[in-house]
Order: sequence, then C-alpha cells, then structure tokens
Amino acid sequence: MISENHTTIKTIAAKLGISKGTVSKALQDSHEISIATKNKVLEAANELHYKPNHFASGLKSRKSKAIAVIVPDIVDSFFSLAIKGIETVTQKKGYHINIYITNDLFSKEKEIFKLLADGRVDGVLISVCHDATCNDHIKELMGLGMPLVFFDRAAEDIETGKVVTDDFKSGYIAARHLVDQGCKRVCFFSISENLSILQKRVEGFKQALLENHVNDTRKNVYQIPTDKNKCMETIISLLSDPDLRPDGIVISVELLTIPIYTACKALNINIPEELKVICFSNLQYASLLSPPLTTITQPAFEIGEQAASLICSSITNNRSLKNEKIVCPSQLDIRSSSLVY
Amino acid sequence: MISENHTTIKTIAAKLGISKGTVSKALQDSHEISIATKNKVLEAANELHYKPNHFASGLKSRKSKAIAVIVPDIVDSFFSLAIKGIETVTQKKGYHINIYITNDLFSKEKEIFKLLADGRVDGVLISVCHDATCNDHIKELMGLGMPLVFFDRAAEDIETGKVVTDDFKSGYIAARHLVDQGCKRVCFFSISENLSILQKRVEGFKQALLENHVNDTRKNVYQIPTDKNKCMETIISLLSDPDLRPDGIVISVELLTIPIYTACKALNINIPEELKVICFSNLQYASLLSPPLTTITQPAFEIGEQAASLICSSITNNRSLKNEKIVCPSQLDIRSSSLVY
Repeated sequence: MISENHTTIKTIAAKLGISKGTVSKALQDSHEISIATKNKVLEAANELHYKPNHFASGLKSRKSKAIAVIVPDIVDSFFSLAIKGIETVTQKKGYHINIYITNDLFSKEKEIFKLLADGRVDGVLISVCHDATCNDHIKELMGLGMPLVFFDRAAEDIETGKVVTDDFKSGYIAARHLVDQGCKRVCFFSISENLSILQKRVEGFKQALLENHVNDTRKNVYQIPTDKNKCMETIISLLSDPDLRPDGIVISVELLTIPIYTACKALNINIPEELKVICFSNLQYASLLSPPLTTITQPAFEIGEQAASLICSSITNNRSLKNEKIVCPSQLDIRSSSLVY
Repeated sequence: MISENHTTIKTIAAKLGISKGTVSKALQDSHEISIATKNKVLEAANELHYKPNHFASGLKSRKSKAIAVIVPDIVDSFFSLAIKGIETVTQKKGYHINIYITNDLFSKEKEIFKLLADGRVDGVLISVCHDATCNDHIKELMGLGMPLVFFDRAAEDIETGKVVTDDFKSGYIAARHLVDQGCKRVCFFSISENLSILQKRVEGFKQALLENHVNDTRKNVYQIPTDKNKCMETIISLLSDPDLRPDGIVISVELLTIPIYTACKALNINIPEELKVICFSNLQYASLLSPPLTTITQPAFEIGEQAASLICSSITNNRSLKNEKIVCPSQLDIRSSSLVY
C-alpha cells in the first residue's frame, strides 16, 4: 500500500490558492481552463511530486488502462513470444497488462472470467484452453460490455475480433511436405478435438492426404493426452505398434516435441531415416536440436501485436468488434528432421 | 468499459430495505453485522449477480490486489518459469499480476517505476536489468511505502526481500567441472559487470581456477554484447583467435547459448571434443540439443514461488521487509556438451 502522506489535488489547490475542481480540470487538459493556469498547475504538480491516484481516476472514468491477457501456458515459445508482441503495443499506448495462466484447464479459465467482471481491466485478450465445453463465461463477460479479442485459439461461435494464422493451409503444407519426402503413412498428432485451430489443421492435413489418394484417414489422426505420463505412454505405444506406426508425423503443438523426440530415442527410432517429423512451433532452438526440427513457424509476435492493436482500438474508440478476422500467415522452415536422408 | 446497468450496493440495499452502509459492512464480513443479515445480503447479492467495483473498493481500502512483476525478458526459460511459479502462488492468494518487460533496458525500467506510483499495484517483484547505473527509481518507489522483493537479479545495496540462487557456488561448480574434464583454458562469458549475480558467478569461477593454480584470470572473463550482431561478432572473434580461444566455456546466461552453438557450427569447432560448454539455463530442450547441453539448472519455478510468498506476506501483514534473503540452490546437470569424448 502506498503511504497516504503524498501530494493530492487538494495540496496543489492549497499551494496555488485555487479550487480543487480547477486543478483537476487542468490536469485533465480541459478546454475550460486557461493555458496559463494549466502551466501553473503542472509546475506545482511536478514540484510536489504529484502522482494521480489510480482508483480515484478509475472511479471517475471507469477505465483502468489495463488489459487482461489469458493464455494456456507461458513456458511455451508461441505464447511467450505472443505476449512480448502484445506488450510492445500496449506499453506504447499506455496500457498495463495483467497475465492469467489457465494451465489449459477449463475450470481455471472460468474462474479467471469471474474475477474480471469488477472493472479491473478494460479489455480481454484470450487464447482459449483446449478442453472448453461451452463459452457461456465468455459470453457473460462480453454481455457486460467487455471488449474481447481472441488470438490463435478462438471460440468459433463468438462474434468478435480474432487474430489467427492460416491453420488449414499450414496443415495442408505440413502433410504435403511429408508426402513429398516419400512418407507412406503420415499421421497427425493432436491434443484436442474441440479446439477449432486444430480442427482446421486436421482438415488441411486430410486434404493433402486425399490428394495423395488416401481416402480413409480415420487411422491417421490421433489425440494425445497432455498429462505427462499418459502422453509418453500413448506416443510409445503408437510408435511401437507395427500396424499403427507412422513414417511421418505432423506434430500439432510444440508441447508434444519433447515427448516425441524422447520416445524415438528410447525406442531407437532414427529421425529422419525411419520417421520424419514436422512441428507447429516457434522454438528458437529448432535448428540446434538433434536432428534440427522442421517447423511450421507461426508469426507469434505479430499475432500478439495485431491482437493488442485491435483491443486497444476497440477500447479507445468505444467500438464494438464484429466478426473481424486478421490472418497472419505461417511459414514452412525445412530442417533435417523431415528430409530424405 | 463494463456497462453501468449492473447491480450496486444501492440495488441490494433497496431490495432488502436496509441501508447501504449495512450492505457494505455485511459484504466486508464486519463484526458489527449479525449473521442473519449477512446471509440475507449474500443471498440477494448472488441473486442480483452483484460484482464489487474494483475502483470503489480500491479507493476505500487503497489496495488493488495486484502485484507488478518486472522482468528483463519473457522469451527465456528462466523468466517464463519464474513467472509461472509466481502465478501459482498469487492466484491462490487472490492477487492479480501485472507483467512489465524491460527488454533489459535501464531507461524502460525507470519508465515502468514511474507508472507504478499511482497505487495500481500493492507490491513489486523485480529482476533488474543488466545495465542499471543507479537505483534511485527503486528507492523512490519504496520510499512511498511500496513493498518490493527482488528475485534472481537483485540490487545489492537495497535492503529488502531477495530470493536468489547460490551464484558463487554455482560459478565454482561450473568451472571446477570443466577443469575436472581436462580443460586447460576455461573462460567465463558474461553480459554485464554491474549485475551482482554475475559478479558472484565470476567470483566462484575465479576461485575454482585459483585452486587449479591459475592466478591471473584477467584474460578468462569476457563481456559479450547482447546486441544480436555484435554478440555473434564478438564470439566468433574470440573463438577464432588462437591466443584467446578457450577449450572450456562457462556460459553465464541462457541467451548466449544459441550464438555460441551457432558460432561453433560456423567455425567447425566440435563440442565437446574441441570445446566443452556448460550453461546457466533452464532450457527444457537441453537434453535434445546437438550435443545435449550441460547446465547449471536454476530452481526458477521455486524462486518465483518464494518471491511471491514473500511479497504477499509483506502486503497482507503490512510488514516491511528487512534484508531477508532466501537462497534456492541450483544443480549441475551433466550432459554431453562438457564430457570427455
């Protein structure tokens, strides 16, 4: 708690022998106050080290100058880069950011939304968790007039701003690349059937397989549990089964990279000789891995920047967001993990 | 901005036919109000979907229930893990966290401190930037009564809570390990002479060399610029110079890992055959790099947790922090990058 013995509007008014109202209006650059008075007030405010009180100004304007950023995880290169992009924009525009981490749990996401209804933030940027079963909590907060923009992981049925990448095309390009490298059995490792961005990546993936005359793709898409032990178990059992084992994998999210590389080491499966992999990832270390990892590199920083710009403009201009979608394209970075040896 | 047509204390008071003061006290669980009345008020509050107003309650209590977390970077496994540790504690205790990224720039750190004087946060957790030349901005904010705890990177001359790792010992262990592996010329690559944690790592490093009869260590410690191009240039020139080139490097911070691995590839220097490396790092991918990276693994998550607990206890109990230091030990994780081939 900041101590109470600091300069207030009253102190400044007393020093200058003018009313509190005049000081307050001068500090808000009101047209009702002369430039001479404004200058005197600003000089006194500086001299007395006046700092505006966050709560008093917030109570008046009902603006907090803060934006909530809700992410599934922060120890993930996509989300940490996206937050960096968000912060670059918000700090320029004078907004603070409150970070909330859901750990990809629906229950925690709902709890966070309850906390945000008290006016603590002026807007919300969110990448939804992968196991959400409904969107009522989001709709309720938006119903109170809260501006909200989805980045990367969006709830499809809610009309508002969305900043995403070209998931269908990226899924297509990833699968196509593995087919072109001679893979006969390409699989898609996902973590959720609910998440729309993963659904789109799967659709693109299936399209590429269809063009390669694989019509039945029911045994090409696997849901991998995110729980650490179950994740490793599932991957090992898939890679050990001669009927199921792929010779190419499109890894849909970065968090599956370590378990897949680790499982291959444990099972003595050589990447890329016996198994080619490509991952949706922003990992800075991709080129230093053994072997270097081919990635669909998402424009994480740019997605963050665009989402922040959209929410700031909605707040500043009191403009409600329609279904505005900004698509930032990803790119294929080919490295050894997917190449013909 | 949250719309105005929501339930206020006035609405609840009108519904129950009691005064606003009684409702307010009941909601604050005051001993002046009977349990029967409290229950009635809570029931009505639930029924009417009452949400407390952040600014009104903050103006009264002068508490924001928010903590500022100031870090040099967020795309760094140490800081992202530390933030995750902080968040785990703060969310349990009902605190929100505001994230500020300095990009390791002193000017930005000072700007951020100016923003925090308005009472927006109840406390500050900070890992200082590496090029700070004075601490006046920190002292000024603390002078206003703001509780502050340093984590990892601390300003030595400011008396308050500090949560750090055993930097001297870790520097010693790192150098000792390389000497034990047969290195004849071990160097320490740093990024700052000002940062106290790096000074301590250097002292430990020098101690290990001294015990190995290297008395003159003036040519064993190098400051590497953090600017991307200059960083690579400096590393390449050090590794190319036959008089300066080390056969063992203690890398003081994770951000130098990629340039050092990349420079070695470019110069055809084999790790560990020709150069052994060990890095202060929390990188999850350390064991998947080519070659796997030996690390001094810092307890980043635990440092975050401890720092958050300390600041929350200081805020809740209105307890000013003396020079309370919590040391969370690091550990040596030996992998191929430092082993005799």
